[in-house]
Amino acid sequence: METVSENRSHGGTQGVYSHDSRETGTEMTFSVFVPDHDPGTKLPVLWYLSGLTCTHANVTEKGEYRAACAEHGIVFVAPDTSPRGEGVPDADGYDMGQGAGFYLDATQDPWADNFRMRSYIERELPALIERQFPVDMDRQSVTGHSMGGHGALTFGLRNPDRFRSVSAFAPICAPAQVPWGEKAFTSYLGEDRAAWAEYDAVALIGNGARLPNLLVDQGTADNFLEEGQLRPDLLREACENAGIEAEIRMHEGYDHSYYFISTFLAEHVAWHAERLKA
Amino acid sequence: METVSENRSHGGTQGVYSHDSRETGTEMTFSVFVPDHDPGTKLPVLWYLSGLTCTHANVTEKGEYRAACAEHGIVFVAPDTSPRGEGVPDADGYDMGQGAGFYLDATQDPWADNFRMRSYIERELPALIERQFPVDMDRQSVTGHSMGGHGALTFGLRNPDRFRSVSAFAPICAPAQVPWGEKAFTSYLGEDRAAWAEYDAVALIGNGARLPNLLVDQGTADNFLEEGQLRPDLLREACENAGIEAEIRMHEGYDHSYYFISTFLAEHVAWHAERLKA
Repeated sequence: METVSENRSHGGTQGVYSHDSRETGTEMTFSVFVPDHDPGTKLPVLWYLSGLTCTHANVTEKGEYRAACAEHGIVFVAPDTSPRGEGVPDADGYDMGQGAGFYLDATQDPWADNFRMRSYIERELPALIERQFPVDMDRQSVTGHSMGGHGALTFGLRNPDRFRSVSAFAPICAPAQVPWGEKAFTSYLGEDRAAWAEYDAVALIGNGARLPNLLVDQGTADNFLEEGQLRPDLLREACENAGIEAEIRMHEGYDHSYYFISTFLAEHVAWHAERLKA
Repeated sequence: METVSENRSHGGTQGVYSHDSRETGTEMTFSVFVPDHDPGTKLPVLWYLSGLTCTHANVTEKGEYRAACAEHGIVFVAPDTSPRGEGVPDADGYDMGQGAGFYLDATQDPWADNFRMRSYIERELPALIERQFPVDMDRQSVTGHSMGGHGALTFGLRNPDRFRSVSAFAPICAPAQVPWGEKAFTSYLGEDRAAWAEYDAVALIGNGARLPNLLVDQGTADNFLEEGQLRPDLLREACENAGIEAEIRMHEGYDHSYYFISTFLAEHVAWHAERLKA
């Protein structure tokens, strides 16, 4: 692991790091905020998964999470959204290829060799984080935005023993039923929709996966809500049918941007902190 | 005035606007955050002046000021740092020309026609802000970073009736005595150092200018502090000699970046709010 930068901020250290990923076959960059803490203490971890086109940098610069993480003693980890670089397959459009990994392990050409964000986030990066940072991996939670909200929901539903709590901002709740997901899943996973179900929060819940609790924030002025890409209505219905305690909050006038996320991310940190105690 | 964008954030509206400036002869862009407020209410204004290379966008995206401004009911205005565009003079290096207006009215060629940031910030932009936003121009304060900290100090010292309080982050305290300022003032104002004094906080204080109070934050790991560009020691000495109540805080390990500014900007908003009440 190499240190790209470390800056003191909000009573902690905001770092950016890179490493050669075995899963993606590329150099991957991520950011970690570590609050000041007593030597030897191990802190709980909140994962933040970013949306289409984003890298670690968007939330690191615009997310306004550090004050809350310092207050609650939480390490904040923000990975990239896909492999990148020369030699890595890409596609026209912002919603496929580099910047659009959809947090899955691709099975189709030309993606299968590099696009392994599921294994990267589920196994490789956590092992690195545990080796390099003062973290207690028995206390993890996950959140994310848009495509990363989809990531947070599906990682949470598939790994109920790993994540104590799951939240999301404007998540893609049912990718198998919306244009973004249909395009990406067809290309990454192939035509057989049976292979899509483990990457679709609404389908996972329908198939019996459960979460202890869930917090979702969604702006009413989000153009992708209007386009039908996000479908919080389907998530709400699935949670009601499954008896999952879900707080899905609609925020009048807020859009899909970091102006929205930064307004509520500190509240999510506090909400996760409650569930990460002890 | 044209609206570039408006986004709902932290219980207010973060806008970006542009207009054709008479003073600079160019289109100028600025941002304004307006907290929700009762119709007809006029809110106090905090000006934020940015540093070398920055536009309005740096603090707007990374400053973490909106929650505090919403809490205290303060309008936050962030102008650009210079005229820009084709046909506007520029120079090699980040510390002269576009992005480096130094908040002065240039008197030398090729700068004199466009580089009129003093008149722009002292007269033209306030008049536009007063016409277009729900502001009480009898309640204004000013802060800024680095070159913009220099701007905040010098606007404050020259206009004690306009600004109720002045603060700064890592300001250039004595530009006439440091490399950045000597280079810029020579080129913008000419060789005669007598013309520099009204743009140098330490010189202004020495010549009798006063502030009611002053808050300055400075990181100890700031590379420009080490380079001798900032000289808070000279500001401290000038304030002590003049009897100006100044709180100059040194922050261990913090650098010159927005990771530093965003850590303390909400505190500055609260400090100004105390002085802007009633």
